[in-house]
Order: sequence, then C-alpha cells, then structure tokens
Amino acid sequence: MFKVRLIDMKQGAYEALLHVEDANELGVHPLDRIKISSDKGSLICVANTTDSMIKKGEIGVFTEARHEMGLAEGEEVNVLLGEKPASLKFIKKKITGQKLSRDEIYSIIKDVVNNNLSDIELSAYVTAVSIREMDSDEIVNMIDAMVENGEKITFDKSPIVDVHSIGGVPGNKYALLTIPIVAANGVTIPKTSSRAITSPSGISDTMEVLAPVALTAQKIKHIAETVGGTLAWGGGVNMAPADDKIIRAEYPLSLDPRGQVLASVLAKKKAAGIQYLLIDMPTGRGVKVETEDDARRFAQDFVELGRRVGIKVECAITYGSQPVGRAIGPALEAREALMALEGKPVSNSLIEKSCSLAGILLEMVGAAERGKGRAIAEETLKSGKALAKIKEIIQAQGGDPSVTSDQIKVGQFKFDVLSQEDGYVEKIDNYSVIQICRMAGAPKDKGAGMLFHKKQGNQVKKGELVYSIYADNEKKLEWAKSLAQKIPPVSLGGMVLGRVPDYKTI
Amino acid sequence: MFKVRLIDMKQGAYEALLHVEDANELGVHPLDRIKISSDKGSLICVANTTDSMIKKGEIGVFTEARHEMGLAEGEEVNVLLGEKPASLKFIKKKITGQKLSRDEIYSIIKDVVNNNLSDIELSAYVTAVSIREMDSDEIVNMIDAMVENGEKITFDKSPIVDVHSIGGVPGNKYALLTIPIVAANGVTIPKTSSRAITSPSGISDTMEVLAPVALTAQKIKHIAETVGGTLAWGGGVNMAPADDKIIRAEYPLSLDPRGQVLASVLAKKKAAGIQYLLIDMPTGRGVKVETEDDARRFAQDFVELGRRVGIKVECAITYGSQPVGRAIGPALEAREALMALEGKPVSNSLIEKSCSLAGILLEMVGAAERGKGRAIAEETLKSGKALAKIKEIIQAQGGDPSVTSDQIKVGQFKFDVLSQEDGYVEKIDNYSVIQICRMAGAPKDKGAGMLFHKKQGNQVKKGELVYSIYADNEKKLEWAKSLAQKIPPVSLGGMVLGRVPDYKTI
Repeated sequence: MFKVRLIDMKQGAYEALLHVEDANELGVHPLDRIKISSDKGSLICVANTTDSMIKKGEIGVFTEARHEMGLAEGEEVNVLLGEKPASLKFIKKKITGQKLSRDEIYSIIKDVVNNNLSDIELSAYVTAVSIREMDSDEIVNMIDAMVENGEKITFDKSPIVDVHSIGGVPGNKYALLTIPIVAANGVTIPKTSSRAITSPSGISDTMEVLAPVALTAQKIKHIAETVGGTLAWGGGVNMAPADDKIIRAEYPLSLDPRGQVLASVLAKKKAAGIQYLLIDMPTGRGVKVETEDDARRFAQDFVELGRRVGIKVECAITYGSQPVGRAIGPALEAREALMALEGKPVSNSLIEKSCSLAGILLEMVGAAERGKGRAIAEETLKSGKALAKIKEIIQAQGGDPSVTSDQIKVGQFKFDVLSQEDGYVEKIDNYSVIQICRMAGAPKDKGAGMLFHKKQGNQVKKGELVYSIYADNEKKLEWAKSLAQKIPPVSLGGMVLGRVPDYKTI
Repeated sequence: MFKVRLIDMKQGAYEALLHVEDANELGVHPLDRIKISSDKGSLICVANTTDSMIKKGEIGVFTEARHEMGLAEGEEVNVLLGEKPASLKFIKKKITGQKLSRDEIYSIIKDVVNNNLSDIELSAYVTAVSIREMDSDEIVNMIDAMVENGEKITFDKSPIVDVHSIGGVPGNKYALLTIPIVAANGVTIPKTSSRAITSPSGISDTMEVLAPVALTAQKIKHIAETVGGTLAWGGGVNMAPADDKIIRAEYPLSLDPRGQVLASVLAKKKAAGIQYLLIDMPTGRGVKVETEDDARRFAQDFVELGRRVGIKVECAITYGSQPVGRAIGPALEAREALMALEGKPVSNSLIEKSCSLAGILLEMVGAAERGKGRAIAEETLKSGKALAKIKEIIQAQGGDPSVTSDQIKVGQFKFDVLSQEDGYVEKIDNYSVIQICRMAGAPKDKGAGMLFHKKQGNQVKKGELVYSIYADNEKKLEWAKSLAQKIPPVSLGGMVLGRVPDYKTI
C-alpha cells in the first residue's frame, strides 16, 4: 500500500509520482503507466519518479488524477504497473506513415480528452500528423471523434449560421458588425470564438470590452434563440476539448498542420450546432494563407469536408496584407466597431468587409436574394438596426447596453509617430504590428494596441501623424516603442518610416 | 519581484511554475520561456502555470533550475518573458524535411544537454528524426556534437577495443567471456554497457551480480590500463548525455530510428576512447534486425560512419532467433557465464559466440593472425586464463574474486514446465521469454529469470523438463506462470507447449 501525497499541479494528463526505489521494485520506468486503486475505483496514470520530493512508500498524485479519483492526503492506495493506452500503437502507426481507421482515430481522441497521454506522446502525435498529414477520411473521422468527445449545443431553431476567420490579420473586428447585421435580419448566429493566442486581440477579447463572453452552452442557446446572436468565448463551453489539448502541443513549435486546422474549425462549429458556416480567409503577405491559389485550395477543402460532416460551408477570400480598419487591440477595436455601428466615420475596409460577409451569410440561408445580400447588410448598418441589435446582445451577455464609442477607455499612455518626409504608405507589416501591440500589453491589457492614421496607399506629408501606440502601463509603452524602432511597422514610399536615431513625440 | 518556492521534482529540463494571473500579466503562455534573474545570475526556463499550487507573486522552481541557479526558499528573483531557445527553429526545419547543418545540429544537442527543451519540444525532434531520417552528414555531426557535450575518457595506451551488441536477444551474456578472453591476450578492452531497458538483463545487470559496475571515468581508465578490461555500467560516466535524454523521449513510443541508434552507439564509444569496435548484430525472428540483408545494410552503415568519426568498426551478424545459452536473468546468466569460464559444461552456443567475437577482436588489432583468432580465444578459455582474468576484473571493480558458479544465488521460487508429449523444440520465442522474465522480476530482482533445459531442435519426451521460471518472490512467480500460459515461450513440434488447462509442477 502507498500513502497518497497530493501535489496540486496540473500536468495536462493523469500523472503521479513515485519514489525511484519504489519504481524500480515495481519495474516502472519514467513515463510507464501505473494503475492506482483505492476503494473508490482505479485509474491508470503516467508515472514520474523522484528521489527526494516524496518518500519511499508514498505516491504523489497530481491535480487531474486526484480529482478524478477523489483522493485525500494520507489515504492508502494500491499501485501496480499499468497497461499503456491503446492509442500509442496508433500514434506509432501514423509515425510510420500509415492511414488510420475510424476506430483508431477515436481511440487517440478519447485518450487525448481523457488525459491519458503524456506530453511526449501527444507531441509525437502532433508532429507525426504535421509531417504525414491526414487524408479527408481521417479528417472526417477526427472531426466526428472530437465532437462526440465533448459538449454539444442543439438549437430548436433552424437555420443556425456562423462565420469564422482563419486568423492572422490584425484588427479583424468585423464580427462586431457582421453578427448584429445578420441577427437583425432574423437569422440566428450564435458566434463563438477563441481568445487571442498569438494575435493582439481575438473577437472574444474585443467583445469582452463591452460584455462578459464566458457563457455556458445553455446561455448561448438561450440568447441566440431569443436575441438572435451571441459574441461568446468558445472556451466557456467544453466543445471538442481534444482540439484545445492538441493546440497546446502545437503551440511551442508553431505547428499548424492544415488537416488539424480543418478538423479543429469544423469540429468546434459542429459541436456548436452550426449548419451554415462562412469562412473568412484573409489572404496576402504575412498572414496564414499567402496566395490566392493556396486560398482556393484551402477553401475547397473546407467546402468538401463541411459537406461530409453536415455543414454547408462557403469561403470568402479577403484582403489580408494589412490590418483591417485602423485600430488594433481590444479596446481600440471595440471603439472602432462601435463607431461604425453608430454611423461615425471609420475606415472603409472595415465597413466593406463586415457587410460583404453579412451579405453572403444572408444569401446562404435565403434571407437575401443572390447578389442582394451586401446591400441589405449596408442598409441594416446605416439604419441603426445593427447598433440596436448589438446593444441587445451586450445586454443579454451581461454588459451595459448604453455604452457609446466615446466612453470606451483606451490606453492612457500614448506615443505618436510622425512622418520624417513626404511620400505615401507603401506597406503596413502585419507581423511587426502584432509584435508591437503584444509588447504594449495586448490582449491582456485591454487598452493597449495601435491606431493607424494612414493606411496603405495614403499620401503622407512630413510631420504628419502616421500611427500611435497605446498602453495601459508606461514601461510596456517604452518596450513597444523600442520594438517599433527595431521592426518598423510602416514602409513609406520605399523608405522605412522611423528608422532614424530618435522618434518625435507630440 | 517574485518569491522563490522550491519544488523538489525533476522535470528533465529547466522548468518553473507561475501563478496563472502572473503569467497573464507577463504575457506568458504555458511552455513559453521565462527568464529568472537573481543576484547570482539568470536562467531561461520553461514556464508552467497553476492556479493553486503557488500563490500570486511566487515562482515555483523545479530541481534542475534550482540547482543551476543555487536558489533558496523564499529568495526574491526577477521574472521576465524569455526568448525561446534557438534550436526550436532547427527542430521545425527538420519537421519540414530539410537537412540540418553542423551548427544547427550542435545547437539542438546543446539545448538537449542543457535542459533547455520541454518534453513536447524534445518529442517533436525525436519524432521528426524518426520520420524524416538523418543522412550520414547529419549523423556524423550529431555524433561529434554528442561527444563534445559530455565527459570523455582518454587512454594512455593503444589500441583500445570494445564490443557492443545491438540488443534484442535474451540471454546475451557473451561479454562476461569475451572481455576476459581478449584482456587475457594483452588487448585493452574497457567495456561499458547499459542496464536493461526493455530486456530481462543487460550486461551491466549481469555483471553486477559479481561486482559493482557504477565506475567513474577515472576508475575505468585505471582498471583498463592495469588489468586490461572492465565490465562497467556506462551510465556511471556522463558520456554523450544528450543520447540518454533522447532515448528517454523515444521510450514511450518505442521509437528507435536507425540514424539515432548509429549516432548513439558511436557517440558513446567515441566518448569512451574506443578505437576498434566490434558490433554484435543478433539477426532473426523477434530481434531488432530480422533479416540478413537488413543486417548487412545496417553493418555497412556502422562501418562507414565509424570511418568518418575515427573508429575502426567491424560487424558480426550472429544468430538471434532464440536466446543465447540456456539462462536468462541477471543471476542465472552470471552463473552460466562463470560455469563456462570454469570449464563446466554449458550450451555450445554461448561458447561459440563468445569465442568468435573475441577472436575477431584479437584479429582486428593484430593480436591474432587472420583466421586464427577464434582458436586462440578457445584456448584462452580452456586454459583457465579467462577465468583468472575475470577474477582480476571482479576484484578491481570491488567484487569478491573467490566467487564460484555454485555460490551464485538464483531465485528461491521455481516453477518447472514439463512436456505434455513427445516431439522436438521447434521454436523459442524471444518476445515471450523477455516478457515472462520481466514479469518474474528481472532485471531488478537479480534471481529472477528462466532456464531452458531444451533448446531449438532438441528432442523432448513426454514428462521431460523443458524450462523453469525463477523468481525471488512468490507472487511474481505466479504472475510469470500465468503470463507463460497466455504467451507460451516454447513451440514443440508444431504444437504449442503448455497450452493445456493446467501445468504440472515438480
């Protein structure tokens, strides 16, 4: 018998810790499996070993395993060598380049969701899929497996639509316009989206400036069925949780295998009860999809796979070579979106993109005639119906519906960058913009980000304001400033703006 | 400033633990890098997060990082977002299938040795190498990098020879004969070997029955230069430590990419100062190398790579389809080897293999004429010089040189399996033998293992003893017995021995 020592640390898997001498006696190597049994049941865990943290005769039990087994400090349990999870064989099969069957993929996804794989094993799977790729049968099976192993939302209404961006372009706050436009036309659009992982602000981060976004599945269903739309954080619902665990392993090496992206998006949307899905695919320099040819292939895969899993998919290839609109960062983007809804002057690119996407969605479900969707969307925006609708959504999610764009608090520390010469804006570099905004504190610091007073193709005179950096914190503004000097975000008429010994401040 | 909380647990990398709120404020995601600074210096660590194990404002520091920085409980340190290790770029490059340069491989190996890679990152590398493979330039660079990043032994004598088995065949205790035979002929043979990972007994586990095997580099050098040979555990010396860390990541999926095996063996031997190396390559059913064609290709790679890193390599393709000798398990194998050295009757296969390998080694360095090596080896064995030499080695390593084979204590619990019919032994299954021995407690329980009274091709009469299982512990004997019923180790004249409702015991 072993005495339980609770170790309150999440490992991402069921894991336990043995003293090396006990491990030797049991014939357990690090990362072998052990079976822990108490009178309440038993659990297979990944074994780690130590010669100091716990004593011989003790077993350290980490957070996930402790909760699963309901163990208490000092409790006595039995420990034996355990069997390896079945899916290890199938991961190895993928490594050797063989196609996986439906059952094999289900086995892997089940072990991923059930915390049965160690980091080393999960990473081997992610790397193998990245190199060997998955064919469309495998992707379909993976989508089904991810959906079945997680929470689902089922709506009593139909049709249910959504729009999803294949990320990469900063400032992409279109959904704060598109969702209320579509909902104001009587089409149910329960948008769920992720928080920013590597970008300055995800739709959820931006919406969170206006209202809470962590909603339960029940609440999403209720709001969508009564108000017509949500702007919720998908992470508040346990949909396709395998996907999140896989993404965690992809993150350190920025692996982003296309098969996994397809499976990830379609699984989340299928679990969310979506029947019609529009994919916004920003294409261009410095985003995930760089060429139109590539975008068309990727779009075709989405459409085809959507058909196989029962989602009607259309794709919009959008311009992605510079930020959408003028604002980047949660509060700056929320303010710009509200300004557009309030009818105040904003960048054309934002209005055009939001209304085009809304128009396609309306056409997809027959709420607008083919070719008329965009005009209806523009009218919905102009009439103030979209503003009224987002206020309903804000209220339903628990925010203050009386909010106006001029009440939005942006970063109190600001740095303005002026042009050193006459010319025109040749390029705004997405990568540089993203890094500078993150250095300024986005998305965690809601007020942090950048505002562009000039965009691609604009004339600029010497001394004119080109862009500003915002931060909630003076030190982070300094870091962002010095990064902007190292990787200038704006190229001016072939010259790089700001590559001068010192910047001018106003 | 953060307050240090020591967490006495080895992570295999420099790792630390932040409270999720602190991580958010710093912009740190799980597995991002943080830079911890104290007045004694700074260290880049892999960041983990918790919402309970430590408090906001505290930083948990795991064993490796704590030792590296010399931190004390409660000490104050500074924490910032840190840069990712350079080698992540090169791991990703390998994932995409590109060839790595010498500098890139050195960067990866350095980060592996210096605990800079998380499990997820290390596993991605191992998986990528397994799928993409390495060409011979890459393997040579990896060998050099592994040797340079570790301890080395340099001998004042020459030539220095060694023999290494590409594992897989159980009962392979040949080295306990081969090493003293070679040394008794005046050739220096400082053998280092590993402990069993998945087999019932490695050479080190077997030798440990007779003498301590955990020797320092200095001691190995001294014994080899005075006595002529060692039978030491390689893990007692920090040679090519990157290799051990890579093997740890390969273990859970039993990945064994050939390029890594070549690099691993040659790096360890180069670090150990070996100039002439004989590879024993057991070939056949149920071992690593299954066909002779495959063995020849693998052997050719060893010879060619050896040439490029300055080791003269020869390979012996040996019979691997059944165990070597009759005994499997540390004490049983040590006893069988001693019996052979004492001139007592043992299995011919053991004598033949040990003397053949010794003969080739003697010929390789000119201590025997081409074609005469084996006869000299047999004579050395028969004359008792090999027995005298192993006693010198046992004494030098700290064991009792007066030991005799009948003093070796084998498992006190024994189970004999009798034949149920007349016939002949058609097959002894290596896989089954290995599993049964391990279930009986080998290699940790020195007395555990199996002894075969009949081998392949032998006539067997009904009621005759075929094999025995030994254990130090009654329960483990029961487990091993029931496993032997599930996966019978011996096939008799086309019939499977022991697939009957109950065994007979004597």
